[in-house]
Amino acid sequence: MESLDQLISALNRLPGIGVKSAQRLAFHIISMGDDEAASLANAITDAKAKVHYCPVCGNYTENELCSVCADAKRRPDTICVVESARDVIFMERIHEFGGRYHVLGGVLSPMDGIGPDQLRIKELIERAEKDEVREVIIATNPDVEGEATASYLAKLLKPLGVRVSRIAHGIPIGGNLEYVDEITLSKSIENRREM
Amino acid sequence: MESLDQLISALNRLPGIGVKSAQRLAFHIISMGDDEAASLANAITDAKAKVHYCPVCGNYTENELCSVCADAKRRPDTICVVESARDVIFMERIHEFGGRYHVLGGVLSPMDGIGPDQLRIKELIERAEKDEVREVIIATNPDVEGEATASYLAKLLKPLGVRVSRIAHGIPIGGNLEYVDEITLSKSIENRREM
Repeated sequence: MESLDQLISALNRLPGIGVKSAQRLAFHIISMGDDEAASLANAITDAKAKVHYCPVCGNYTENELCSVCADAKRRPDTICVVESARDVIFMERIHEFGGRYHVLGGVLSPMDGIGPDQLRIKELIERAEKDEVREVIIATNPDVEGEATASYLAKLLKPLGVRVSRIAHGIPIGGNLEYVDEITLSKSIENRREM
Repeated sequence: MESLDQLISALNRLPGIGVKSAQRLAFHIISMGDDEAASLANAITDAKAKVHYCPVCGNYTENELCSVCADAKRRPDTICVVESARDVIFMERIHEFGGRYHVLGGVLSPMDGIGPDQLRIKELIERAEKDEVREVIIATNPDVEGEATASYLAKLLKPLGVRVSRIAHGIPIGGNLEYVDEITLSKSIENRREM
C-alpha cells in the first residue's frame, strides 16, 4: 500500500519517531474519522504557514512581533539568550523572568559548520549596544557547545559595558547526590553559596 | 500562537504522543522546509483517502482486494483470525503463513460495549462455511479479551466442521525463565511438547 508506506516514512522522519511508532501512528491515522484526519493535516499546513520568527528576538510568532517583544510590561533592560524558540516556552513556564529574550537559533559547533555567522549573534550585539540593556543572561544548555557559546558571547558582550551572567548549574531540586553525574556534582561544589 | 497550539493539541491526541513529544514534534514541523511539511500533511490526507478495508478479510488495502486476498498463491483452506489489520503486517513478516486472513476489528469486550455484532464475526462464519476452508487459526492476543474471543469463535466454528486452532503461548525464544511472568510460565508447562 503505497500511500500507507509514504505516511509511515513521513512520520518516521520526525524526531523520536521510530519505525514501530510511525506504523502505529499511521494505522491510527487511517482509522481516524475523516474530520479528525483532515484537522491534523490542516493543523500542520496552518502552523507551518502562519508561524514565523520574531524579527527582534527570533522567537516564534504568528504576529509581527512575538508575545514577549510586544508586551510593554517586559523589562527591556534584561535579555535572556537561549538556543532555540522552544527554550523560550520552558523559561516562560516559570513565570519569573520579566525581561526579553534573544534566540540564537543554535550553538557554535565548528564540527557541524556552525560558526558565529550562522547564529543570531550580530543581532544580539546590536540589541546589547542600546543604552537600555543592562544585563544579558546566557541560558544556553550546560553542554560543551552551550558552554563554549556562552564564553564566546561573554567575550563579545562585556566590552559593551553590559553585565553578562550565566544561569546556575548544580544539583536539581529533588535530586539525589547518588544519581547526579560527577561534572554536575563538581559544579555544585564550585558554585556553592554561603548559608 | 493559536496555530501552533492547535498543532500541538492535534499531535497530542495521537496514541503514545504526550504533551512534551507533541511540542517537540510541532516545533520540528514548523522548522521543516515548506516542501517537507506539505508532504507530511499530504501523506496524511492521501493515506486517509486511499486506504480502506478489504471487503473479504477486513485488512487494509488501496485496491479492491487486499494483497493477500488478491494473491492466488495464498491457500484458501486456512484462515488466520487476527484482531487488527496491523496484526496482519506482523504475521506477514514471518513469511511462513501461506493462508488467508480475517480481521475481526477488535475483541469482545462487554465492558466497552463491544459484542459479537461490533466485530466481523458474521463474515468469518460465512467464509468458514465454504467447503474450501479446512482450518481457522485464532491469533487474537493472549490477554483476557483475546482468550475470551478465541473461545467464543471456537464454539461457533467447530460445529461447521472446520479445524479450529489457537496460536501457541509460552516463553519467547531468547527469553529467560527469571523474567517471564507466572501465567506465561504456567502456560509453557501446560502446553509442553514431547522431545
